[in-house]
Amino acid sequence: MQWVKVLGGVVGAAALLGLGIIVGHFAIPKGADSPAPSASASQDLDLEILKTVIEQLDANRIRENLRELSKEPHLATSPRDEALVQLLLQRWQDPESGLDSARTTEYEVLLSFPSEEQPNRVDVVNSTGAILFSCRHSEENLTGEQGGPNVVPPYAAYAPPGTPQGPLVYANQGSEEDFKELQNKGVKLQDSIVLTRYGGVGRGAKAVNAAKYGVIGVLVYTDPKDINDGKSLPNETFPHSWCLPPSGVERGSYFEYFGDPLTPYLPATPSSFRLNSDNASGFPPIPIQPIGFKDAQVLLCNLGGNLAPADWQGGLGCDYNLGPGFRSNGTFPEDRFSCILKGEWAVPRLMFPSSQVNVSVHNRLELRNSSNVLGIIRGAVEPDRYVLYGNHRDSWVHGAVDPSTGTAVLLELSRVLGTLLKKGTWRPRRSIVFASWGAEEFGLIGSTEFTEEFFSKLQERAVAYINVDISVFANATLRVQGTPPIQSVVFSAAKQVERGRAGSGVGDLSGVGLHGISAPGSSGLSIYDNWIRYYNRSSSVYGLVPSVGTLGAGSDYAPFIHFLGISSMDIAYTYDRSKTSARIYPTYHTAFDTFDYVNKFLDPGFTSHQAVARTAGSVLLQLSDSLFLPLNVSDYSETLRSFLQAAENLRVPLEQHSISLGPLVTAVEKFEGAATSLNQRIATLQKGTSDPLQVRIINDQLMLLERTFLNSQAFPEERYYSHVLWAPRTGSVATFPGLSNAYSQAESTGHEPAAWAEVQRQLSIVVAALEGAAATLRPVADL
Amino acid sequence: MQWVKVLGGVVGAAALLGLGIIVGHFAIPKGADSPAPSASASQDLDLEILKTVIEQLDANRIRENLRELSKEPHLATSPRDEALVQLLLQRWQDPESGLDSARTTEYEVLLSFPSEEQPNRVDVVNSTGAILFSCRHSEENLTGEQGGPNVVPPYAAYAPPGTPQGPLVYANQGSEEDFKELQNKGVKLQDSIVLTRYGGVGRGAKAVNAAKYGVIGVLVYTDPKDINDGKSLPNETFPHSWCLPPSGVERGSYFEYFGDPLTPYLPATPSSFRLNSDNASGFPPIPIQPIGFKDAQVLLCNLGGNLAPADWQGGLGCDYNLGPGFRSNGTFPEDRFSCILKGEWAVPRLMFPSSQVNVSVHNRLELRNSSNVLGIIRGAVEPDRYVLYGNHRDSWVHGAVDPSTGTAVLLELSRVLGTLLKKGTWRPRRSIVFASWGAEEFGLIGSTEFTEEFFSKLQERAVAYINVDISVFANATLRVQGTPPIQSVVFSAAKQVERGRAGSGVGDLSGVGLHGISAPGSSGLSIYDNWIRYYNRSSSVYGLVPSVGTLGAGSDYAPFIHFLGISSMDIAYTYDRSKTSARIYPTYHTAFDTFDYVNKFLDPGFTSHQAVARTAGSVLLQLSDSLFLPLNVSDYSETLRSFLQAAENLRVPLEQHSISLGPLVTAVEKFEGAATSLNQRIATLQKGTSDPLQVRIINDQLMLLERTFLNSQAFPEERYYSHVLWAPRTGSVATFPGLSNAYSQAESTGHEPAAWAEVQRQLSIVVAALEGAAATLRPVADL
Repeated sequence: MQWVKVLGGVVGAAALLGLGIIVGHFAIPKGADSPAPSASASQDLDLEILKTVIEQLDANRIRENLRELSKEPHLATSPRDEALVQLLLQRWQDPESGLDSARTTEYEVLLSFPSEEQPNRVDVVNSTGAILFSCRHSEENLTGEQGGPNVVPPYAAYAPPGTPQGPLVYANQGSEEDFKELQNKGVKLQDSIVLTRYGGVGRGAKAVNAAKYGVIGVLVYTDPKDINDGKSLPNETFPHSWCLPPSGVERGSYFEYFGDPLTPYLPATPSSFRLNSDNASGFPPIPIQPIGFKDAQVLLCNLGGNLAPADWQGGLGCDYNLGPGFRSNGTFPEDRFSCILKGEWAVPRLMFPSSQVNVSVHNRLELRNSSNVLGIIRGAVEPDRYVLYGNHRDSWVHGAVDPSTGTAVLLELSRVLGTLLKKGTWRPRRSIVFASWGAEEFGLIGSTEFTEEFFSKLQERAVAYINVDISVFANATLRVQGTPPIQSVVFSAAKQVERGRAGSGVGDLSGVGLHGISAPGSSGLSIYDNWIRYYNRSSSVYGLVPSVGTLGAGSDYAPFIHFLGISSMDIAYTYDRSKTSARIYPTYHTAFDTFDYVNKFLDPGFTSHQAVARTAGSVLLQLSDSLFLPLNVSDYSETLRSFLQAAENLRVPLEQHSISLGPLVTAVEKFEGAATSLNQRIATLQKGTSDPLQVRIINDQLMLLERTFLNSQAFPEERYYSHVLWAPRTGSVATFPGLSNAYSQAESTGHEPAAWAEVQRQLSIVVAALEGAAATLRPVADL
Repeated sequence: MQWVKVLGGVVGAAALLGLGIIVGHFAIPKGADSPAPSASASQDLDLEILKTVIEQLDANRIRENLRELSKEPHLATSPRDEALVQLLLQRWQDPESGLDSARTTEYEVLLSFPSEEQPNRVDVVNSTGAILFSCRHSEENLTGEQGGPNVVPPYAAYAPPGTPQGPLVYANQGSEEDFKELQNKGVKLQDSIVLTRYGGVGRGAKAVNAAKYGVIGVLVYTDPKDINDGKSLPNETFPHSWCLPPSGVERGSYFEYFGDPLTPYLPATPSSFRLNSDNASGFPPIPIQPIGFKDAQVLLCNLGGNLAPADWQGGLGCDYNLGPGFRSNGTFPEDRFSCILKGEWAVPRLMFPSSQVNVSVHNRLELRNSSNVLGIIRGAVEPDRYVLYGNHRDSWVHGAVDPSTGTAVLLELSRVLGTLLKKGTWRPRRSIVFASWGAEEFGLIGSTEFTEEFFSKLQERAVAYINVDISVFANATLRVQGTPPIQSVVFSAAKQVERGRAGSGVGDLSGVGLHGISAPGSSGLSIYDNWIRYYNRSSSVYGLVPSVGTLGAGSDYAPFIHFLGISSMDIAYTYDRSKTSARIYPTYHTAFDTFDYVNKFLDPGFTSHQAVARTAGSVLLQLSDSLFLPLNVSDYSETLRSFLQAAENLRVPLEQHSISLGPLVTAVEKFEGAATSLNQRIATLQKGTSDPLQVRIINDQLMLLERTFLNSQAFPEERYYSHVLWAPRTGSVATFPGLSNAYSQAESTGHEPAAWAEVQRQLSIVVAALEGAAATLRPVADL
């Protein structure tokens, strides 16, 4: 999971209506051991099957999957990564519990690795070049799993090679504002090395921002204040707690875009056109290297210069100064002087500057073969409608949490469904595609290449994409990100399921004619009732509901939603935010993210894993088996209203530039009207016997709505981003991203007419998209 | 119709297999007066209905439609254009013969008109500025229809205003090669006015090319050799024959792109973002004015300089010289000299240059409201599948041929279908959308804005677009342009129908259980058998078949095929090319294109109109009513093979730049295999009783194939063009346009690595598209 790219903001809207729709279809129970259902055009979700699946998802099997998946490091394209490809194929081709078919798709993609011969180094050197201090090249071997040739040393993937040397400056999180502040304070940045802490902005952005100020090298570390709730001592960190040990280093991709860097918009087949890597864009402009906080402490606590601002201070137990250079009373030698004769006087002259930091980066770009694994269950009635469920397979080291908690759930879910399939008990209405993506950690590469290769087919036929990357961050609550139409099906699933002991877990199905096996987990609450206690919002439509977050580009859902316009979601269990302020689970992307870490600290009973499996499994079954697709398009209205409300704050300045919000208001109203009417038509149709073609026509409207928000002309600078509602928003106004960004740009450039023209253009693009969306939802014979 | 933009090349492939498929469905006859069929999921084409429609399409009614449509000039957005909007609405809302519904969609678009106060002028002036000769401002009023305020004077729409003056040069057709040749011959082009003849390159290109050489104004005329088979005298031209009279002037749009110039990619709603017209691109860079050949003769036959090359000579009865300037022994005054004293000597000095040509253009850009009219028949079974049939409504003057011959057919076809509909006899399986586009003559504006407004809906649901613009150019033979999958349905229609006397016209249906009313037109041949005598080719699959041409951007099909990837076609009756070499019918875009012209010279019996109505009507019915869509996707294979064969000629130079054709060969083979298998599956399904969802799944594959050829990244410089097989080809090799153009560019730039990289990129784009196309055709559960 690429954490830093997750966009802020929480959207989502409750979906009791949508739930009602789904629930209304829980009406054709079949015995779980009845013969394979014949393909009837009216085949609908079978509640008994759903109950069977929920019950059979086994926490212990998930644990054993995880143990196997994480037992060795499996960096993308490594031998163990390839071995896991075979493991997945074997599971999905198992005669007793496999799927209809499984295969791999391979791409030749550009990855970045540290040199094996020349380790990356970070040293403090004095003015003669003597090394005074060296940062660790690798993490401390605390559990026996941090050593060996398969543990890739900490590095910044795609950072260019180079050996810059200069005085050190502390630059906080390396944001644009941070560098501006340093400049304002008169700190010399030209030819310096900056030390930054993770967070605030994306990894690569730290180098991009730094280079603009003449910085020649960047270091980055994880501050204990940001990840460990302040804890930093060996005996209070892993393996003694879940906290990051002092030598732990977050690896990661520093590539600005996603997908294979050399083949944008084209599948990275061996024969594909490739950019020359010198012409490829999105790589950091200057060398960067990540280090552990223990080493960072040595550097930072020795810095001279003025005291850094209060909110730049961290948990290393010293005052953070800005630099440049080390303080004269610290660990590193002071400046030295010589004398020159001037007339009869000997005048002291600064001969040698302070000790400097030398960063040696020897990363290499390499073309490697990376595989996706695809497992397919053929739909009985509408085999040309695909519900996709995926996660990446590659890790930085053992990757127990990231991504193996997700893959462990994926394998258990596919086992349970595969078993029903092989027994002849069940075959879904629509096709199900399970996917294990390669090289996600380098920038969602496997999934992006997949969407490029199957662009047309997926745009034509994909109903939804379910992503379960890290399935368990922590044990407290469900956390879902997704587009509004998936809210209702997720709520429905979360209400059906409890997090509990093995063998239980079916929640409140009583209203639909079934009685759940009540087996309280922590407190007998459904996943939903627990969730709403942690993350909630007040919906104008539904009242208090759990809040569903928006999708950024943090995992493999990104190409599905942003490039293809496929309704997508990401499902996980996560923290009690009142108990930790950790940016993410502390051993993220380190060699300490191991099976024992999960088994001991994150989810000892694997009940959170099971809860995610049950929730995601129910979502998958509802999407693949319901006669009417459980996508409540009306739930987009709340998002549009909130964007519109934010846009209203711009009404006065926009009108000053002759830009009217009127057409936007009208378009939102049209969308609302069309969505409401469509839901009414569905409700009416559900009362009668449904003509299969009529159902298909409605379902096509539901499926294709998300596609209507794409506009390939909207963001010409943004690779792959074409969804006019979910493209990255850099502007501060929480409205449609194109409008927000263009407005912010126009504001900052003063009264540039071209900038205001772009505001109007972005507004027109949104209006056209909303009009198109409304047109797609209206009765199909009304052109 | 925009004639000059029609791309060359004739593709097409016979479709006996496809025909067989359709014919196989002529099997559920129903009485023509039986009650309205209920919506049965298996509803298929009813041959009795087809026969009824063919028989009822009435030549006299088409004639009367044409008389009404062309009785007054109806330039886009003029009062008469608006009156015709009402006429169309009235016809389509008629209680006895109307459609289910009809409405208008209005756009605010940028048009270009000559000034009413200041007529555009072309004058020969002497060195004192005195006018020696003036070209006519309007055409001669030969039939009483060429006068009056509603006849727009000849002008070049979108040519910028200006009053350049300079010596005249003859520049042939104004192609790049022509200007190069003038330069090579040492003819001074800087600050000259060039006279060009229509043909060879697009209208606007003449000015674009000229401006590169410093030319400051362009004149353009139609040479009698190119349009009148040499005839040029008043008594041998209209109204005495179909030939262009000496004062006739072809008007036209000189805009380089299509669609509203200010709102590319956005529907031109009143509130839409608009480019500032100064920032809009695609307008001619220098003033241009078209003139009649009589005026051109005065200018051209008086030119001095060297004799123009043999293939630059024309039919004006004099030698064409190149200029610059007029010859001294002609109509216009010679140079004059004065003397100056130099010492004691009086020395002659050139005081005045030759007479020059002054071009005064006062065109104005204006935002105008232009309407489309849409008429809809709701589909009984699949209302969300649209078969579109359209033509533009606007003309330059009376527009009898262009576009009213097409609209007259459109109205007769909609009357016949509307009558069956209102009687309750028939309702098509799929929806039919009739369209009357506005402002086509200015650059396909109405249709393009329509595709922008309904982008999503059309991409989701449009089965095909049938364009019938000029329906009758002449009386000899059918002429069809289209994408390969429509070949089979056109052949099928052309075999069913004869061109004959009123009341007859059903051809060979005997093989499908019906007996056509044999009524020989010229010779009792079917449209097909007549067609194959005029335009044919040898197909590797079918043997000798009529040749179907490719689609350029000559009429409103352009946005449908190039921007939306909707299978499209254009149907007309046309010339016997052995009898005329006219570029197009001679009065094209002049004030002589009147009802009498059609009624007297083009199609006195309106049997060609009827033949087009019958053919297009049958195509429309087959597309809207057949259970399986009559699109033979396998017919793309022949096109791909021919492109591949042409690419093979490049194999050696490509390999020298490490570019392999192997992946292209493989992709074509995959496409062929997938298409053949799909046809086999269809044939098998047709033998049994068809499950409606299975039929729908197959039809979706057939419908969406054309979409898979779109790539919005392929031609970033080409507005709207995204179809990787049919984008404009400027390169000389008859292969995939992107490959051909990039190759030609790479060749011409020598060994520029970036140019060869673009060749590889274009190749990869085609390979990816073909792979995607094959994937769409393969069994839907094979991901």
